[in-house]
Amino acid sequence: MSSASNVPRPLLPLLYLAWADGILTPAEQRLIHDRCAALDDAAPDLCKRLKAWTDPSDPPSATQYFRWVRALQTAADDIPQATARSLTELAQALATNGDLPDATARALADIEAALGVDSREVLGDLLGHRSADTPPPDAPDLPFAVEQLQAVLDGDRAEIKDRLRTLLNDPALHPDPSLPTPAYREAVLDVCKRLAAQGLGALSYPKAYGGRGDIGAFITTFAMLAYGDLSVVVKYGVQFGLFGGSLQQLGTQRHHETYLERAGTLDLPGCFAMSETGHGSNVRDLQTTARYDPSDETFILHTPHDSARKDWIGNAAAHGQLATVFAQLETEGTTYGVHAFLVPIRTADGAPAPGVRIEDCGEKMGLNGVDNGRLWFDQVRIPRANLLDRYATVHPDGSYESPIPSAGRRFFTMLSTLVGGRISVARAGLNAAKKGLTIAIRYGNTRRQFGPKDRSEVRILDYRTHQRRLLPPLATSYALHMALEDLTERFAARAAGANLSDIEATANALKAYATWHTTHTLQTAREACGGQGYLAENQIAQLKADTDVFTTFEGDNTVLMLQVAKGLLSDFQREFRDLNVLGMMRFVAGEVTTRVTEMNPIVKRATDTEHLREADMQGDALRFRERALVQSAAQRLKHRMDNGAAPFDAFVEVQDHLLTLAHAHAERVVFERFVDRIATVEDASSRSVLNTIRCLYGLHRLEAHRAWFLEKGYFEAPKSKAIRTEVNTLCGEIRPWARALTDAWQIPSGALQAPIAQ
Amino acid sequence: MSSASNVPRPLLPLLYLAWADGILTPAEQRLIHDRCAALDDAAPDLCKRLKAWTDPSDPPSATQYFRWVRALQTAADDIPQATARSLTELAQALATNGDLPDATARALADIEAALGVDSREVLGDLLGHRSADTPPPDAPDLPFAVEQLQAVLDGDRAEIKDRLRTLLNDPALHPDPSLPTPAYREAVLDVCKRLAAQGLGALSYPKAYGGRGDIGAFITTFAMLAYGDLSVVVKYGVQFGLFGGSLQQLGTQRHHETYLERAGTLDLPGCFAMSETGHGSNVRDLQTTARYDPSDETFILHTPHDSARKDWIGNAAAHGQLATVFAQLETEGTTYGVHAFLVPIRTADGAPAPGVRIEDCGEKMGLNGVDNGRLWFDQVRIPRANLLDRYATVHPDGSYESPIPSAGRRFFTMLSTLVGGRISVARAGLNAAKKGLTIAIRYGNTRRQFGPKDRSEVRILDYRTHQRRLLPPLATSYALHMALEDLTERFAARAAGANLSDIEATANALKAYATWHTTHTLQTAREACGGQGYLAENQIAQLKADTDVFTTFEGDNTVLMLQVAKGLLSDFQREFRDLNVLGMMRFVAGEVTTRVTEMNPIVKRATDTEHLREADMQGDALRFRERALVQSAAQRLKHRMDNGAAPFDAFVEVQDHLLTLAHAHAERVVFERFVDRIATVEDASSRSVLNTIRCLYGLHRLEAHRAWFLEKGYFEAPKSKAIRTEVNTLCGEIRPWARALTDAWQIPSGALQAPIAQ
Repeated sequence: MSSASNVPRPLLPLLYLAWADGILTPAEQRLIHDRCAALDDAAPDLCKRLKAWTDPSDPPSATQYFRWVRALQTAADDIPQATARSLTELAQALATNGDLPDATARALADIEAALGVDSREVLGDLLGHRSADTPPPDAPDLPFAVEQLQAVLDGDRAEIKDRLRTLLNDPALHPDPSLPTPAYREAVLDVCKRLAAQGLGALSYPKAYGGRGDIGAFITTFAMLAYGDLSVVVKYGVQFGLFGGSLQQLGTQRHHETYLERAGTLDLPGCFAMSETGHGSNVRDLQTTARYDPSDETFILHTPHDSARKDWIGNAAAHGQLATVFAQLETEGTTYGVHAFLVPIRTADGAPAPGVRIEDCGEKMGLNGVDNGRLWFDQVRIPRANLLDRYATVHPDGSYESPIPSAGRRFFTMLSTLVGGRISVARAGLNAAKKGLTIAIRYGNTRRQFGPKDRSEVRILDYRTHQRRLLPPLATSYALHMALEDLTERFAARAAGANLSDIEATANALKAYATWHTTHTLQTAREACGGQGYLAENQIAQLKADTDVFTTFEGDNTVLMLQVAKGLLSDFQREFRDLNVLGMMRFVAGEVTTRVTEMNPIVKRATDTEHLREADMQGDALRFRERALVQSAAQRLKHRMDNGAAPFDAFVEVQDHLLTLAHAHAERVVFERFVDRIATVEDASSRSVLNTIRCLYGLHRLEAHRAWFLEKGYFEAPKSKAIRTEVNTLCGEIRPWARALTDAWQIPSGALQAPIAQ
Repeated sequence: MSSASNVPRPLLPLLYLAWADGILTPAEQRLIHDRCAALDDAAPDLCKRLKAWTDPSDPPSATQYFRWVRALQTAADDIPQATARSLTELAQALATNGDLPDATARALADIEAALGVDSREVLGDLLGHRSADTPPPDAPDLPFAVEQLQAVLDGDRAEIKDRLRTLLNDPALHPDPSLPTPAYREAVLDVCKRLAAQGLGALSYPKAYGGRGDIGAFITTFAMLAYGDLSVVVKYGVQFGLFGGSLQQLGTQRHHETYLERAGTLDLPGCFAMSETGHGSNVRDLQTTARYDPSDETFILHTPHDSARKDWIGNAAAHGQLATVFAQLETEGTTYGVHAFLVPIRTADGAPAPGVRIEDCGEKMGLNGVDNGRLWFDQVRIPRANLLDRYATVHPDGSYESPIPSAGRRFFTMLSTLVGGRISVARAGLNAAKKGLTIAIRYGNTRRQFGPKDRSEVRILDYRTHQRRLLPPLATSYALHMALEDLTERFAARAAGANLSDIEATANALKAYATWHTTHTLQTAREACGGQGYLAENQIAQLKADTDVFTTFEGDNTVLMLQVAKGLLSDFQREFRDLNVLGMMRFVAGEVTTRVTEMNPIVKRATDTEHLREADMQGDALRFRERALVQSAAQRLKHRMDNGAAPFDAFVEVQDHLLTLAHAHAERVVFERFVDRIATVEDASSRSVLNTIRCLYGLHRLEAHRAWFLEKGYFEAPKSKAIRTEVNTLCGEIRPWARALTDAWQIPSGALQAPIAQ
């Protein structure tokens, strides 16, 4: 190819395009040659030359091709961008001296049409000139004030939250997780002592023992600490929540007087020794024994075999001196089930107490600042007074007395001491997720990659795929924030000794829901930050490693969710059972209402934005889902048992259904609490932005379950598709506020050190 | 309550049940009292006594309640288990001396019916006697031979796989990740040297340079090494695959002669310096420059600003001496795009070469045995010969020559050197997932928790929820195994210089699909092992930490998937463009066929097992899905551009759709390769078990996308539900083989040290 330099300018785009991918396919060649006749009429030997320029066996050289590119770019500099939307338009613009006959224009248009969209993108690449500098992100005009929104989020606990924010800006509260494990553990213990010295350990204990009698403040502190080091959080929870909490809630006055103040100051480091290697979830069947011996009025704690060793016990490997040990109480030849006993596990010099064997659990995925250990007891005798005897006493003669007759009921009452811990873990997990999201959203708000040639590269949070990854978890985090704070306050406000079962069921459901949200969100945040998310300095790695076990401890999530579902089934049965005839008729009518709703063409078909964003529409759908799932679960169970299945086997067979039900329950509760909370917000602009976030949360849940709604006939296909589109729209709407929405969490800068999040 | 000891035996179950949860609700009390009349007829003062025993204000004492329990258990010991399925039956059995009048029996039956299923579970708890020992898992009768199945999985590469298995049983190949980072890096380097000494570094290089010219063996080795330490895998890949591969594929004979043998022996540790801090995914726009200076025939490598530093470069922080550096080539005032240059980065004594600045990337979430670093170049001059000039040359006078005219095409040709790396990463990720699954499945096969009282606690893999977590990933792992081995062999068999675009597109899709599978599977495996999965000794923690970046490196998964989707759109357009009139009509007819299929009531509605398990049904659905998604994506793009959107913006708006399309493509390809491979298996029992696994993989994919199929009207609701049920059934069918199916992978025991997996 020699005569290339005298290509008529209007043909340059064609040649550029033809060779852009370096290959002229037979079809492309045929297309061009087919159109030659038209060109021939206008310019006699152009067809011949064009054939020469488009000969696959004789491609242009790299330098020749580059010359075309440069000529095109030079010529195109004079052309307003708006006119160069297509090959033909570009050719026409280049034909300044009228050298583009109509026939040529038509031929070009034909070719372009045949080449399709690619051509336009290639032209964009050619004609754009990207500015070399990357401008800072726009400061969006926010329709709300971050401070006002923060005030809503902080609610009535602003004081303690602000105090923790100040404390977390102190480097002394941030131990270094890269220290060798023994040193890291000491550093974490030291931070817990500093917290105790601030009076933050005893918050939930009575004033007489150095506390404030404020369980809500304790849970809030635990949650706020999760913006910092998570080993500190867990150690804090083990010492002040589980160990101290067991003294407070399972013990009686003499235990409080002897131990509670020392627990709250960390003068007495303690353990909560419930889990065994062989029994982690099924703690009702744990196998450590505590046999009463009236001859010397002692209990004899014993580990009958290796799988009955206490396992995963926080504070056990290094620091704990006294342990609340859960064991099967035996007296007068009878086993009365699991009770809690205080057992010294270390002597004053730190050695294991006689008869106690201690082993370190070893390195873990994360939380290595917590000294988890294993405990064996070899016929260890403790005084009778060491039984934590709020719910059961053994008299000196060995006779047993309890205000709760049933062993099962007694056990579950004792277990309800874990409710506060579950709420705490859920909130700590949520805050870890918020921190990860904050890092990822700040990074996505500044990081640029790819883009059209005529603009700066695009901020990655402007990509729909990126919005889809990060903004629904942002909405879920807001929703969970409201639901968990509400749960905390209901828990804190309960009367002493009041029935906790309602709160306990919600705590179980939200613990599982929130910690799965944590795992999912942090994984998403890591991936959304690319390689930067993998660097230790950007903090997501540590957050992921530390929180990974949140889905397991304080109740395995799957086990908790199955309990939640069983509870819902029992409620359903009770509801049915407690009804008189009139109530029964109302109940049946109510069920029919859900069936009528299925038939309501407006709900099934409406696709307009206003309808899709309605809190009532979303809430009704989530309520219908939970209700229908509990009904069908009950039917399936009954069907199996009617056919002779044992209850246990029937439950196993419908487990997947029960898990779905428990999730539906959690989502309905979270959604309703979010809606309730929004209604109480006084600042109109905060209320408005929260409402938009609620729209995204609700619709994203409906989108996630659209298969189920379609199967039920509750949605028709156009509505299902419209929901997907609306979720996209909402993501786009929220995107300019994303950074401000994370700012409203006010994560203290001393805890948010990731370079990519500055 | 004083007269409790003379409770008639048949009433014991009622009292036990009434107080089992420690609370007698008003409804329960009312129920019992309502039935008193019936009892009164039979036993005059029984009603009064029953009312006393069921007075919520005077519950039985714990010892009293326990006496009832013991009396019941003693009495029930004589009753055959089968007859005690209900409260009434138990009461009748207890009425040995005829003291249960019909009226009483009816009253009991009423009460039981009202109390619902709970009562039966409570009775089960009461009457069962769990054996204390936990029996070993049953050794199932396998319908296949593990060795035969292993032979199918190993295929034609059994020899090298067995060699690696033997090597991986040598502790010398397992560095200790808990070493301090500098020592760990040296240990990893040492292992790589041992592999090189075995001739495993140079496998893909020509025989003249110490190799075997066998890229398939190289990729297989890389994949097998992933059963061991993953830092070794990555370091091995950087040195022999990326660095050596760039020499081999982008260089010419003089580069091969000078460097290739030394690369293969690790005598010359090298780097592959492509990514920059500011450009990780969009490497076409990377900003390091290489300007040619004809005065001394050198290229001047330069880092113009900090975000153009090379980042994440493996081997850079500690060991690399020579780097393949990608930079924008400038000569004669023209920029010809990205080219590769050999740049010495360290002197013989290990110090940075003049003008080169090196920084350590620092600690990472995992892979800390790999010395990732950053590189800056300050006007570093290298000889003209250091351009890797297979695809472009600069002559001494500065003139540029390339067989590929278009810069874009040239760039993508160079990038295709990454294809082997992507296949390797996908396979390594898959093997890491297999290892995690093997640990979790072995644990689930022995770990027991909860259960009916009359049997041992249940092995957790017998729970449906647990099967649902682990068995679909098992099926996906089998499917991916087949698809990735097929891809490897097609890649290895390609003629030198052949167009790779087909293989490249599949490699991109499967790299993303496989590594997301890895992340998901390892997370699931961790959670499925509970706290045990969190312990370092059980290996899942390290697997998770090390593989987490697999979704990011060698091409960010989301970016790769969007490329795959764009490629599918181009193919679609080309298909359309290349058609003549007859072809066009056939094409349109073909599209109509998919619409007719939508209408086919058999496909839409059939719910029988045989139909649901058909490979054709599953494959047709996956093919329809991919085809329909590519059509609708094209329509959406066209619609937006017709309305004036710039191509870039139009693509951003449909990104979520494109991601869905790319996933659909990956799943269709994996499914088809699995089906193809099964058809070639000679051993009938292996073929049969693989076919069952294929059923699960296919149906599980259809289940995952059932919302889409319902929206399209391709399924009706009953079919969608039937698929879910069939997935459950398949999980149950495969469950007894689960351990054997992981055994067939033959992960070497030297690499599978987790105590819970023994």
